[in-house]
Amino acid sequence: MEARPVGAAAELSMAGLHASLSDPALESMNFLNEVASRYPQAISFASGRPCEEFFDIALIHQYIDSFCDYLRNELGYAEPRLSQALFQYGRTKGIIHELVARHLAVDEGIHVDPESVVVTVGCQEAMFIVLRALRRDERDVLLAISPTYVGLTGAARLVDMPVWPVRSGRSGVDLDDLVEQAARARAAGLRPRACYVMPDFANPSGATLSTEDRQRMLEVAGQQDLLLLEDNPYGTFGNGTRLPTLKALDTGRRVVYLGSFAKTGFPGARVGYAVADQRVIAADGTVSLLADELSKIKSMVSVNTSPVAQAVVGGKLLENDCSVIKANVRETAVYVNNLSQVLDGLARRFPPESAGAGISWNVPGGGFFVVVTLPFAVDDTMLEYSARQHGVLWTPMSHFYGAGNGTHQVRLAYSQLTPDRIEAGLERFTALVADAQQRAAAGSARA
Amino acid sequence: MEARPVGAAAELSMAGLHASLSDPALESMNFLNEVASRYPQAISFASGRPCEEFFDIALIHQYIDSFCDYLRNELGYAEPRLSQALFQYGRTKGIIHELVARHLAVDEGIHVDPESVVVTVGCQEAMFIVLRALRRDERDVLLAISPTYVGLTGAARLVDMPVWPVRSGRSGVDLDDLVEQAARARAAGLRPRACYVMPDFANPSGATLSTEDRQRMLEVAGQQDLLLLEDNPYGTFGNGTRLPTLKALDTGRRVVYLGSFAKTGFPGARVGYAVADQRVIAADGTVSLLADELSKIKSMVSVNTSPVAQAVVGGKLLENDCSVIKANVRETAVYVNNLSQVLDGLARRFPPESAGAGISWNVPGGGFFVVVTLPFAVDDTMLEYSARQHGVLWTPMSHFYGAGNGTHQVRLAYSQLTPDRIEAGLERFTALVADAQQRAAAGSARA
Repeated sequence: MEARPVGAAAELSMAGLHASLSDPALESMNFLNEVASRYPQAISFASGRPCEEFFDIALIHQYIDSFCDYLRNELGYAEPRLSQALFQYGRTKGIIHELVARHLAVDEGIHVDPESVVVTVGCQEAMFIVLRALRRDERDVLLAISPTYVGLTGAARLVDMPVWPVRSGRSGVDLDDLVEQAARARAAGLRPRACYVMPDFANPSGATLSTEDRQRMLEVAGQQDLLLLEDNPYGTFGNGTRLPTLKALDTGRRVVYLGSFAKTGFPGARVGYAVADQRVIAADGTVSLLADELSKIKSMVSVNTSPVAQAVVGGKLLENDCSVIKANVRETAVYVNNLSQVLDGLARRFPPESAGAGISWNVPGGGFFVVVTLPFAVDDTMLEYSARQHGVLWTPMSHFYGAGNGTHQVRLAYSQLTPDRIEAGLERFTALVADAQQRAAAGSARA
Repeated sequence: MEARPVGAAAELSMAGLHASLSDPALESMNFLNEVASRYPQAISFASGRPCEEFFDIALIHQYIDSFCDYLRNELGYAEPRLSQALFQYGRTKGIIHELVARHLAVDEGIHVDPESVVVTVGCQEAMFIVLRALRRDERDVLLAISPTYVGLTGAARLVDMPVWPVRSGRSGVDLDDLVEQAARARAAGLRPRACYVMPDFANPSGATLSTEDRQRMLEVAGQQDLLLLEDNPYGTFGNGTRLPTLKALDTGRRVVYLGSFAKTGFPGARVGYAVADQRVIAADGTVSLLADELSKIKSMVSVNTSPVAQAVVGGKLLENDCSVIKANVRETAVYVNNLSQVLDGLARRFPPESAGAGISWNVPGGGFFVVVTLPFAVDDTMLEYSARQHGVLWTPMSHFYGAGNGTHQVRLAYSQLTPDRIEAGLERFTALVADAQQRAAAGSARA
């Protein structure tokens, strides 16, 4: 220890703090928020936030009342017990687990024991506690379909768990690469524990796995003894026939289902959940439910999820027969219309025969995101330039990959925008593309 | 990898999950809850929950409305921005930071920049993210005044950070032992990063540090280059003159203050905070605020604290001029009266000249807890016997120590009980003590 002057102010060296704090995954979230906050007037295709048109404070009161009616009438709570349920410490795994299980049955055809549901502080906490449980030591690695949601990568960093990318290929998952990465990990003396995947309208890619690929992925997971961590925040926001979730197809308890109400309820409730019906076998043969093990971790992270917040989400579920599809008919129409408008707007502005050369995009069937591939590289410097010079924000896809990938792609999020703003935003984006192409041409002319 | 039958159900081995899941600290919380749930008719001196007399669902609505008025009138929010503030994703460090800073000034004489406040999902998340930041690798250790709150130990387990006990001695902290433990850690090539302490009416000991010891503890922290993690959930529930918090005395930014509204607001809000005004210096010389580093970790644990929950706590603060003392005049009277009743009741039942031989207890000046020392050993088996045979629950102090300490002590929590229940509970506890003494005498007669 160096000698320090007595009474000197405490200063901490970043080098002495946890490595996640210097990691690009955590910095990237910060950088993107910071750029957005510096250009509040810019039209933002950057943030995947739900539409705000139907937000109304009166709904919060109404949902809480509906949930209290449920406690009174359906569960038979007398008033002291009712106020206790909302005010006092409560069940670590949550108090809306029955309603979550009903929702999963109604909307997803997933039938689970409510005891296997852990209600969490948003889906983020669900991801975190699952990874904390699975990461025992430095041999444990997580596989994840690439490009990957930043929140998953960040949660993995907090438990020092490496994330190995699995190629998504053309169809959303390259199953040969999944087998190969698992084998590579084992050959290196490591333990691939699970593979993270967002099968429906993924963030950031917008890709959706076919039913056949879902079946095959479950088979591969069984063969490789991997868990699948299925994250499904956007699945109900599609413009066509819905495909079964992995969990609905899961006959071997391979899938830990990560549920979010951030988009189907609202983000400010911070309510999500994990469904973890796996059996855990202790050395003495005792069997427990993975949900109960996750609950022990949760008790040391957040104690329990605010019952007030759970009441708000529970009330919204109750008012809609536990169907988030029913609860979001208007919102889904907004997202589906916005998606069409973005796709039509891109096609109009970048026809293949003219400016469109080298510019392409995918055609998701729902969700919040479209990915545009450009004939030039895009990075954070260009994002900042775009915000300043053209008044439009988007997300460089490189943030969702390890180094060196996605360099020519941007993610456009359209969920929070009105039709007018989408049109204006695409105009600005088109101007940016023209500008960047000119600058690239001038650059190569000079070279 | 062992060969597995294709399609076999996933089973996890506990030996492959994170070690915290097999740790006594996490098991202990589970065991205590489980015993309590099996004997719902028992009178519980076990749980340190706030009194429920003043819980009223109407207050939740009222607090939310008060907070909305504040956003409207004091911050000038128009309606769309207002509903956005409660419904949408929001500032990671929270939206009641200004109110928390006002509360600290009003009630504690602590003056901090609101930017150094991180609003968290209860104080538990504050503890967790601070420990996650401070635990870089296996060389980092945490010192903690012993006996120690189980939630602190559990959070440390989640980041694989050893907790080294520091003796509390007669006065609540043995500062020589603090110096000695820090030296011992350094001699072992380890880095003692901080010392956790609850200076006011500690859980579980009920002990309070003198002002002189607080000053000396800050000096020792400066000399040893330790942070002090000050946890203060009970400080306003005293029966006499209040002492300054460590943070109020802290001129060298040695103290990270861990704030809770679980007892002064209500537990179901799950709102707490950390005050972290320390400077963090990066390798390139960049300076940041520790609060902003904690915020990066929080963004990967819970994204942000539910603004609905923050609105409830914010409203309660606003209705009481940001004073939790003012907000809890009735509750504090309950706790202070309960404390007197427990102390009087113990003195009446265990007078020194009769049954009291070998039975003693401390005399806290406030808080939720009294510790009784008994002439025989108490453990989980006796707790279960007590619940079954005598209908009374309490907590073996051994749960708050490492192995082999506190074996003859129980913690009695009196915060949640009515006067009638306290009297009845002490009767039952007295019967248990007589029973145990008889059984101990019979045992030694046999021996």
